[in-house]
Amino acid sequence: MYPQGHATSVTVAGLGDRLEGERRPGFFAGVATVVAKLLLQALPDVAFFGEKDYQQFLVIERMVRDLDIPVAVVALPTVREPNGLPLSSRNAYLSPEQRAVAPALFRTLEDLAARAATGAEIAALERRARRALRRIGFDRVNYITVRDAETLEAMARVDRPARALAAAWLGETRLIDNLPVGAPRAAGGR
Amino acid sequence: MYPQGHATSVTVAGLGDRLEGERRPGFFAGVATVVAKLLLQALPDVAFFGEKDYQQFLVIERMVRDLDIPVAVVALPTVREPNGLPLSSRNAYLSPEQRAVAPALFRTLEDLAARAATGAEIAALERRARRALRRIGFDRVNYITVRDAETLEAMARVDRPARALAAAWLGETRLIDNLPVGAPRAAGGR
Repeated sequence: MYPQGHATSVTVAGLGDRLEGERRPGFFAGVATVVAKLLLQALPDVAFFGEKDYQQFLVIERMVRDLDIPVAVVALPTVREPNGLPLSSRNAYLSPEQRAVAPALFRTLEDLAARAATGAEIAALERRARRALRRIGFDRVNYITVRDAETLEAMARVDRPARALAAAWLGETRLIDNLPVGAPRAAGGR
Repeated sequence: MYPQGHATSVTVAGLGDRLEGERRPGFFAGVATVVAKLLLQALPDVAFFGEKDYQQFLVIERMVRDLDIPVAVVALPTVREPNGLPLSSRNAYLSPEQRAVAPALFRTLEDLAARAATGAEIAALERRARRALRRIGFDRVNYITVRDAETLEAMARVDRPARALAAAWLGETRLIDNLPVGAPRAAGGR
């Protein structure tokens, strides 16, 4: 995959530095570089990426658009168990007790997204959601947040397309999930 | 060329940081990014680049190889006046007096390359060449050097493919040039 003397790196500024990128500097540069190589080796017409890794999808979509890589990038919705838990190889590491707690990440994100869609102040909703996750049994919460759906920039209230995203730990297992936020109702409407 | 929200950058570590890159941080990232876009927009079978901008050629060749961009990158030799001066739009800025001095950059590089090819110590040859350029009438010498022909790394003596490169000023005009260095003769041979 990497020829001798490989020295080229593809970075996506801003988008690649937030959330998952904050904790893993250079991580999305590695993702963008290897996905660019894959796409240019195979030159497919369409490439599908799962929405479970929403930030990764955004980084790849942005890179493909910015570099004019001739491929259509398509997001596929997250596949979930009936209780909302996203399918993930990591679920195998969860104890039965942790597995009972895990779907609460999805439910808390659903609740956060629904409240944010009303146009409520996001910072307060995030604090509430974080407390809820801790109370339910998550050992650490890296983030549970509502961001601009395209740039992942923080926003005060939902006034444009937004996404709710979270990363939290159950013991040694780090779970991530995300959901779209519905458009806020127009003021005075119902 | 750059879509709204453009955030992607292509960098070539090492190669893009030396010589011209030292004086213009980020310059070769700009070159690599825009050339990647051009190549991916047009998807040509072959792309030709002039050897006059030798470092630029190396950066592009490395990037294309590293990212698997499906194009053959080919270098074209520098076109010169009979006196050795490379054709360049910058030559129009030279006064008649400067124009008489300018070909000495090529001749000094030729001399440097020939001496380096014997296996002599490069640092001493570089000092000598720099003094020669100043004596001939160059106002400033950014560099006159012999480097690894592929990585542009400094080398003590020529023991692998090498390139002689120079950048020097005549008044307000900065001239650059470069030449291949012949293989050193084997010790004891003639």
